[in-house]
Amino acid sequence: MTNPMSSSESPKVLFEGRHVRLVKRGQWEYAERKSVTGIVGIVAVTDDGKLVLVEQYRPPVGRSVIELPAGLAGDDAAHEGEALEQAARRELLEETGYEAARMEYACAGAASAGITSEIISMYLASGLRKTGPGAGDGSEKITVHEVPLDQVHPWLQQQAGLGKVVDLKVFAGMALIRDDKETRR
Amino acid sequence: MTNPMSSSESPKVLFEGRHVRLVKRGQWEYAERKSVTGIVGIVAVTDDGKLVLVEQYRPPVGRSVIELPAGLAGDDAAHEGEALEQAARRELLEETGYEAARMEYACAGAASAGITSEIISMYLASGLRKTGPGAGDGSEKITVHEVPLDQVHPWLQQQAGLGKVVDLKVFAGMALIRDDKETRR
Repeated sequence: MTNPMSSSESPKVLFEGRHVRLVKRGQWEYAERKSVTGIVGIVAVTDDGKLVLVEQYRPPVGRSVIELPAGLAGDDAAHEGEALEQAARRELLEETGYEAARMEYACAGAASAGITSEIISMYLASGLRKTGPGAGDGSEKITVHEVPLDQVHPWLQQQAGLGKVVDLKVFAGMALIRDDKETRR
Repeated sequence: MTNPMSSSESPKVLFEGRHVRLVKRGQWEYAERKSVTGIVGIVAVTDDGKLVLVEQYRPPVGRSVIELPAGLAGDDAAHEGEALEQAARRELLEETGYEAARMEYACAGAASAGITSEIISMYLASGLRKTGPGAGDGSEKITVHEVPLDQVHPWLQQQAGLGKVVDLKVFAGMALIRDDKETRR
C-alpha cells in the first residue's frame, strides 16, 4: 500500500471539467483550476479609511458572498502570462472601478489546502482613485461596498445576519492591514 | 440559454469521488465534500499569549502547510451528527493535545467560494490545558507550533521563506482575536 502522505505520489486526474479538474494524489482528492497562472486578492483601502469589498452570488455556496476584490491571472488568452500585480490592478478596476497609486505585495497563502490547490497572492492597494464604473467584466454581477475600517467586524456580522456569506479572507485582509500599519510605525 | 447567475439552477454531479465530488451549477464547477456536516477552524491561544498552529503536508498544494487546527464534523460513522463545538474540541485535542476551558463561536465563512462549497465555522479557544499528545488521529502527521501573538506575522514570513505554505485563515484568526479583545474592553 502506498503512503498517502508521500510527497512523491504523482497526481492523477479523476475528471477533467471545463474550468476545474478533480485530482487524486495518494488518498487525497482535490480541485484544481485549469489555465490559471495565479490568483490575486486585493485589500484595498480608500484615503478616507474605508475597506473596499465586493458582493456577488456564488454558485458553490448558493448565496451572495461578501469578499475581497479578487480574480484569476492568465485565465484567458487575453491575460496569458499576465503578472500578478498587473492582474491585481485589472481585477480591482474591473470589480470596483478603482485604480491604485500603490499596489504592494503582502503575502501568498492557501485558501483551503485540504480541498483545493489554490494559492492566493494578497496585495495591499492604497491611493485609490475612481476611474471606472466597476461591477465586473460583464459576465459578473457585482455590488461594491465601502466600509470604515473600525466598523468592518460589526458590518460583516450584520451582513451574515441577512443571510449572506462572508469570505474568511476578508478577516485575513484586516489582519494584513493592521500588520502593515504596525510595520510602518 | 440559462442564466449562469440564477440561484434556481440545480447542481449536477460531474464526478463522484470517494471523499469529494465535482459539481456543476450553471456554468460553475466546484468541489464539494461528501458525508460532512460541517467544518471547524480553531483559533487557540494559550494563557501565556501564544497562538497554537499546526503544520502538516497537504497533497493539494504539494507542500507543508502552516494552518489553524481544523477538521471535519460528522466525517465518519463515529462522528455522525456531531455538533460543531464538539468537533472543535475533538480536533483541537487530537491535533494539539489541548483541552479548552472556553470554546466560543466567532463566525462562519467561506474558504474560497469560487471553487468549493466549504463553509468553515471559526471558534476561539482559551483556558488551554495540555491533556493529550496531539499530533493527529494516527492517519495525520502533525507538528504543533506555539507562536507569541506579537510575533505571528514575522514568524509566518520566516516559515514561507523556508518553502512552507501559510493558510490564509491563520491571518483571519489573528483578526478575530483582536476583534474579540476590543469587544471585551
